[in-house]
Amino acid sequence: MKLPSSTEWVLHAATTLAQLEPGESASAARLAVYYDLPAPYLAKQLQALVRAGLLTATTGPRGGFRLARRPAEVTLLELVEAVDGASSPYECREIRQQGAGALPAAECRDTCVLAAKMADAHSAWRQSLERTTLADVLTEIPAAAPARTRAKLAAIRTGP
Amino acid sequence: MKLPSSTEWVLHAATTLAQLEPGESASAARLAVYYDLPAPYLAKQLQALVRAGLLTATTGPRGGFRLARRPAEVTLLELVEAVDGASSPYECREIRQQGAGALPAAECRDTCVLAAKMADAHSAWRQSLERTTLADVLTEIPAAAPARTRAKLAAIRTGP
Repeated sequence: MKLPSSTEWVLHAATTLAQLEPGESASAARLAVYYDLPAPYLAKQLQALVRAGLLTATTGPRGGFRLARRPAEVTLLELVEAVDGASSPYECREIRQQGAGALPAAECRDTCVLAAKMADAHSAWRQSLERTTLADVLTEIPAAAPARTRAKLAAIRTGP
Repeated sequence: MKLPSSTEWVLHAATTLAQLEPGESASAARLAVYYDLPAPYLAKQLQALVRAGLLTATTGPRGGFRLARRPAEVTLLELVEAVDGASSPYECREIRQQGAGALPAAECRDTCVLAAKMADAHSAWRQSLERTTLADVLTEIPAAAPARTRAKLAAIRTGP
């Protein structure tokens, strides 16, 4: 059970964008240098966040990405699921209905007890990430970090 | 983020073994017919449960597998982690320490805030499965199911 490694990229990139001044944006190229990540792959992930309504893409020479909402309105669950989807890691293939031990159809109208327990666990995971917003993350980084993040981003020279 | 499909096999096989009379066991071949699963692969998974201390393998003509503990003492978490391991689906590769935005080492002695939030979610998932035992699962199946399960298992003819 593994999340794609781009999950880490997306969580960090969104946390960085949450530290920009209102109206500011950062390009994928700049964020790629900031984190030493492959720019085309990072851009693809950021586009997925745009499609999920979490980022806004702006065009023009100073264009790039910014949060589509305030940091308090973006949850870690939304970021993770924009990359990996929302399906449960447990896949029920209804083996209770196959083989010599197959249950009667009448007993299989409800979700399998085991699938339901696995779904409960997935809900607990989702709720934990849904409770946590980018604003919560920002409260746990040093007070001086956002200004430093902005300065480091601004110092990056990209492209022609 | 996907659990192996053998997770379903193992949860169901253990639930079936939890319905046997004390001292009874069931072979991998019999369980494979019961669920129409490939016997060698199922046997491999059941051996993993033996290594994890959840099942006991018995030898001889009536040998097979049985629970190593009472159903109330076997959690779904133990079964799932015997198959898939206990590592978190989120892998932190410390991208906060790389690239033009790399944080000073002094700020990276603690776990990354984002990795800690993802670990909290994994803990919530684990706790949910740790709270649920095979005995809990048995309370949610029809009262007549265990006797029927035993009868269907006993009726299976395997091997020479």
